[in-house]
Amino acid sequence: MKFEAKIRVQYYETDSMGIVHHSNYIRYFETARTEMMREAGLPYDAMEKAGVWMPVLSVNVEYKMPALYDEVISVFCRIEKLRGASLDVAYEVRGEDGRLCAVGSSSHGFTDPDLKPVRMKKEQPEMYEVFSRMASEE
Amino acid sequence: MKFEAKIRVQYYETDSMGIVHHSNYIRYFETARTEMMREAGLPYDAMEKAGVWMPVLSVNVEYKMPALYDEVISVFCRIEKLRGASLDVAYEVRGEDGRLCAVGSSSHGFTDPDLKPVRMKKEQPEMYEVFSRMASEE
Amino acid sequence: MKFEAKIRVQYYETDSMGIVHHSNYIRYFETARTEMMREAGLPYDAMEKAGVWMPVLSVNVEYKMPALYDEVISVFCRIEKLRGASLDVAYEVRGEDGRLCAVGSSSHGFTDPDLKPVRMKKEQPEMYEVFSRMASEE
Amino acid sequence: MKFEAKIRVQYYETDSMGIVHHSNYIRYFETARTEMMREAGLPYDAMEKAGVWMPVLSVNVEYKMPALYDEVISVFCRIEKLRGASLDVAYEVRGEDGRLCAVGSSSHGFTDPDLKPVRMKKEQPEMYEVFSRMASEE
Repeated sequence: MKFEAKIRVQYYETDSMGIVHHSNYIRYFETARTEMMREAGLPYDAMEKAGVWMPVLSVNVEYKMPALYDEVISVFCRIEKLRGASLDVAYEVRGEDGRLCAVGSSSHGFTDPDLKPVRMKKEQPEMYEVFSRMASEE
Repeated sequence: MKFEAKIRVQYYETDSMGIVHHSNYIRYFETARTEMMREAGLPYDAMEKAGVWMPVLSVNVEYKMPALYDEVISVFCRIEKLRGASLDVAYEVRGEDGRLCAVGSSSHGFTDPDLKPVRMKKEQPEMYEVFSRMASEE
Repeated sequence: MKFEAKIRVQYYETDSMGIVHHSNYIRYFETARTEMMREAGLPYDAMEKAGVWMPVLSVNVEYKMPALYDEVISVFCRIEKLRGASLDVAYEVRGEDGRLCAVGSSSHGFTDPDLKPVRMKKEQPEMYEVFSRMASEE
Repeated sequence: MKFEAKIRVQYYETDSMGIVHHSNYIRYFETARTEMMREAGLPYDAMEKAGVWMPVLSVNVEYKMPALYDEVISVFCRIEKLRGASLDVAYEVRGEDGRLCAVGSSSHGFTDPDLKPVRMKKEQPEMYEVFSRMASEE
């Protein structure tokens, strides 16, 4: 995967097992996804201001090896599939030593602030173009 | 203190020390404060719908003994001081065995959704009356 | 599903969209799962003290309708499949008005504190029996 | 204040008011404090491995202006007071445009893993030296 977000694991993200609580990977995914969009020239903030939201339709994570306090994890991500009003993103989380911590994916709709679908290609051709370019990258 | 909210400590609230992460007490305070308001007949939800927000102006916590995973803590709270456009709330967190885990306080403004002060006594006399009753309780 | 955990949505669980942030459903699942185990006579706390951990192997969520601030959601859950050293749990989240907010599932291993698999049937027959009873419930 | 940690505000840290939920500032403080210690050559991770914990004794925050989604806030911090078995840290949070978002402080004990005080000067003279240097910086 091309895009890589580096994230330092925080103390408040650990739990009694001494590892990152599993719910936080969903948040790491969000961070990586928004960084990828920023790099592509389409910060999520700007999308929301333009009236396009990207609510999460589904998410899944497979946990392989725990991420640990204070390590700088790498969250790789890429757009796996782009459709007219939705997209899928794939993720891979690796520890500082390169070990695979987790893999996962999320699906998102494109909607207006009332959560009604936005047909991107027609209604937001420029945004669609950016996603299209991202999706065609390896 | 009169009002008591009982809260079960969740696994995701613990950290590597095996105790509740200190940031969560601020969240327990919020839960107790909103439950106290609900019991007084003024759910925070209804306040927001009526256009009155209660942003936090300050908060402080003194940590005495750690709260532990899975115990049902008691968060006691009361309105310590009510002013025209702000109020102070005091808190006490106790473990299942009665030990004192933390004490704290928070101050809140009454504002409109643009965060401009609302003079409660004049603009929202009925809400003010409810807070007034709460504040006069021991 | 038989088991139902009722959870009040907290303000700190909402996000800028004015709805529950999607990552919190994973935490609601955890709360429901641990309450189900407590009711079955096997609190997770006791399991950990007996040296058996239940790390999450995978989790997935499909989001249907947003859960809202201050509503009391119902998180239904049941054990979908019990194996020698792992189990699957299924979840359904409903709003106060009964609308379906989310469905999901999680898989867990049974391990020792070094995250090595524990063959429950042989090594912890009494615990296994409890899970077995839970799994046979509708 | 000398030390500055730059932190990107995440979506999951916002709430229904469209601003950062107040509880997250405590977490930003923790991030800044640990980065300051890392820069001084004493990562918290290493301290814990050497058997010294720094549990939080108290924390307080005054909120001035809300921090917003996606901005890169600056969390300045410095050691305000160093004692034999405890220390105070002061913080200042500023938005991208330099506006003051919050000020605060935290107090920490030095303890062993059983939460018993550690007399740093005598028992951990090298660590104490590092804190001493940090405390003498403007």
